[in-house]
Amino acid sequence: MSNLFRFGVSLEKELLEKFDKLINERNYPNRSEAFRDLIRQELVKEEWREGKEVAGAITLIYNHHKRELLDKLTDIQHDFQKIVLSTQHIHLDHNNCLEIIAVKGNPKEVKKLSDTLRSIKGVKHGTLSMSSTGRDII
Amino acid sequence: MSNLFRFGVSLEKELLEKFDKLINERNYPNRSEAFRDLIRQELVKEEWREGKEVAGAITLIYNHHKRELLDKLTDIQHDFQKIVLSTQHIHLDHNNCLEIIAVKGNPKEVKKLSDTLRSIKGVKHGTLSMSSTGRDII
Amino acid sequence: MSNLFRFGVSLEKELLEKFDKLINERNYPNRSEAFRDLIRQELVKEEWREGKEVAGAITLIYNHHKRELLDKLTDIQHDFQKIVLSTQHIHLDHNNCLEIIAVKGNPKEVKKLSDTLRSIKGVKHGTLSMSSTGRDII
Amino acid sequence: MSNLFRFGVSLEKELLEKFDKLINERNYPNRSEAFRDLIRQELVKEEWREGKEVAGAITLIYNHHKRELLDKLTDIQHDFQKIVLSTQHIHLDHNNCLEIIAVKGNPKEVKKLSDTLRSIKGVKHGTLSMSSTGRDII
Repeated sequence: MSNLFRFGVSLEKELLEKFDKLINERNYPNRSEAFRDLIRQELVKEEWREGKEVAGAITLIYNHHKRELLDKLTDIQHDFQKIVLSTQHIHLDHNNCLEIIAVKGNPKEVKKLSDTLRSIKGVKHGTLSMSSTGRDII
Repeated sequence: MSNLFRFGVSLEKELLEKFDKLINERNYPNRSEAFRDLIRQELVKEEWREGKEVAGAITLIYNHHKRELLDKLTDIQHDFQKIVLSTQHIHLDHNNCLEIIAVKGNPKEVKKLSDTLRSIKGVKHGTLSMSSTGRDII
Repeated sequence: MSNLFRFGVSLEKELLEKFDKLINERNYPNRSEAFRDLIRQELVKEEWREGKEVAGAITLIYNHHKRELLDKLTDIQHDFQKIVLSTQHIHLDHNNCLEIIAVKGNPKEVKKLSDTLRSIKGVKHGTLSMSSTGRDII
Repeated sequence: MSNLFRFGVSLEKELLEKFDKLINERNYPNRSEAFRDLIRQELVKEEWREGKEVAGAITLIYNHHKRELLDKLTDIQHDFQKIVLSTQHIHLDHNNCLEIIAVKGNPKEVKKLSDTLRSIKGVKHGTLSMSSTGRDII
């Protein structure tokens, strides 16, 4: 990588100490790699704000014995077929399922799918991982 | 469900309006279901704080052409074999991969795995979805 | 299902006994359902012969420590991006991986992808599950 | 790999020609790698016969709108929780689903799970990929 550009950064001592603690806890090889990650995180947030194409994952925890829950979850995913890439299903115990839905598409639609799935009665917990297609992230 | 308990809640008009707007946007069937979700979210956060067993998903975006990146990612996942349930891999385009790792185990170890994977040079973006095994969530 | 059509079938006693044994072993609810499955299997085989669009899964077992094996497997999957839907990766033990690739597309290309992956040095075992998109199977 | 052992093999001309055609079609780098694969296939078959621990994948094609089909499929997978590692679900079109279940365990139980799932009314097609945990395959 010959196009690396080097520059100085000034930080308050206390802030730098906290940053270094974080770097250490998170196993970053050096400060530059940690800075890169902070910048990339902001770029991904922008992608979600600006309505570009994004990628991510929706996680759901539910009790599969709840009446009609499975039918509803699957029907909705088929309605959003354009943005659902594939779904991973883990049988956590006799009752509880972890479902992870890989998604790609318009951020508004992805959020709508996530909100719709999470608000179904019987879904115990849901998260939306907002990530990127990686195309515009260096 | 015969064990439903009904009680009153007082909210400032403005706060209630914002809450109702949220409920509407997120397609909740009613205020009670939305309240349930808020409480469940706090229970899950507690599980991550208290060191109980948790479940979740780690997402990674990376360019698979980066030298030795795939070997590193796979080696680390094998080192954390006890908490890695299965991994879903999506080929987003010729360069970019979306990898979603389903995890279950001690929250500290899950966070350590997530931090270790995300800090590897070549990983463009990473997220950790902190969810639950569902056992203690009603 | 009002469009069920009922008809008689003659079978040699010995053949019928073997068929009933099979039905019993495989938990079919009755002979008709078992017959339906036999017919559907032939329809799927036809789809693979006639060059229609098919779906299926490729499984691979390999030792991820083999030099450059992961890079080769991922490069090839990206080259066949149009037919690879998503890939599931299970860490069986410290050395061995089970990779399951969900595929959809032209049967010739699916077979070519399967053959190419399975013939890579370091892949211990591979299978191709030839299934269907389900569109023309009743 | 210093422990390679070289030996001669005699084959009828016609059989060798067919073998070479196969090697060429399947992109094997040379005859030895193709021979290795044939031997490994037999070893895996033995593992399934002898009742050792095996690994594999079950594929199912079904119309998710069929009444109670999803509940049955999920209930059964939870009953076989010990051998089900994780399940990948692809929404092929508005009606049809491709479900791929990664399994590891006793071959008899894996076959029983496969037979039970495939014989459910509404499942259009099912396959069982019989593979290996890779431990005893070189």
